[in-house]
Amino acid sequence: MHDDRRRDVLKRLSYIEGHVAGIRKMVEDDKYCVDILRQTYAVRKAIEKIEHMILEGHLHSCVPEGIKGGREEEVIQELVQLYDIAGNR
Amino acid sequence: MHDDRRRDVLKRLSYIEGHVAGIRKMVEDDKYCVDILRQTYAVRKAIEKIEHMILEGHLHSCVPEGIKGGREEEVIQELVQLYDIAGNR
Amino acid sequence: MHDDRRRDVLKRLSYIEGHVAGIRKMVEDDKYCVDILRQTYAVRKAIEKIEHMILEGHLHSCVPEGIKGGREEEVIQELVQLYDIAGNR
Amino acid sequence: MHDDRRRDVLKRLSYIEGHVAGIRKMVEDDKYCVDILRQTYAVRKAIEKIEHMILEGHLHSCVPEGIKGGREEEVIQELVQLYDIAGNR
Repeated sequence: MHDDRRRDVLKRLSYIEGHVAGIRKMVEDDKYCVDILRQTYAVRKAIEKIEHMILEGHLHSCVPEGIKGGREEEVIQELVQLYDIAGNR
Repeated sequence: MHDDRRRDVLKRLSYIEGHVAGIRKMVEDDKYCVDILRQTYAVRKAIEKIEHMILEGHLHSCVPEGIKGGREEEVIQELVQLYDIAGNR
Repeated sequence: MHDDRRRDVLKRLSYIEGHVAGIRKMVEDDKYCVDILRQTYAVRKAIEKIEHMILEGHLHSCVPEGIKGGREEEVIQELVQLYDIAGNR
Repeated sequence: MHDDRRRDVLKRLSYIEGHVAGIRKMVEDDKYCVDILRQTYAVRKAIEKIEHMILEGHLHSCVPEGIKGGREEEVIQELVQLYDIAGNR
């Protein structure tokens, strides 16, 4: 992963950790369920954003390198799995 | 798309058409909403199955061919978009 | 389901049937996989829109009626299932 | 939220915080992208499980209470929004 992409991903992961801790506080304080669910949704979207960044980097580096470097079937099978993962399938 | 995969996809698409027509009948007959929603869910899953088949074929043919044939950036951009599509993002 | 909502849902279902038939034609004509996948995605989104309309109507009629009419547990169990269905879970 | 459900949700949230910290370590150590994406997917599924638990509790308590207690429209609007959230719509 390129350095600037990694720094961005790491920053976002730290933010998500804090966000989850905040949700834990809301549950401890017996906040309204719907408000909690809005926050868990926001965390899921933040994770999806990170996934998009990581996948984009992977598609621009490991995939072409793997296909040109004789690991085509392995790289393609991984991609099939990643699409199922993305779509909750 | 390989012939056997295409035949399978076409058969599934015809099935989906009939399934949607059946849902239309349920709505006309004022069936219970929850029962209708179970059927629309089943249609979405059937479409996802077709998407999986088409994507798998694409990953095993057009993608390696495109990457080895000098269309790497175009093929990769398409894969990024397909990933967002798969994940409803 | 209210008449105007039902008319709208029926119109959209007919449109989806035609859209699926169009996708079948694309597969028969061996169109590019990515273009086909964009269309199947569009059909999924159209189905989701119909699901949203049907659920909204259900939430404003059958759910309150069921809860006030002594069918609370049954109505709530159905809603739990519908949320899992919506999220592909 | 009932005490036992809240304890379970809190335990799961703590587990997710640790899991995200583990993913951060994987990114710092430049682990393979696909392995990282498998872990972010696992975190999303863990969050969805928590959402299911919170929603189920909400549907069995706040929703019937709100509908019987004169807050029907507000409770129903929240449910419509939660449905879109669950389905990433």
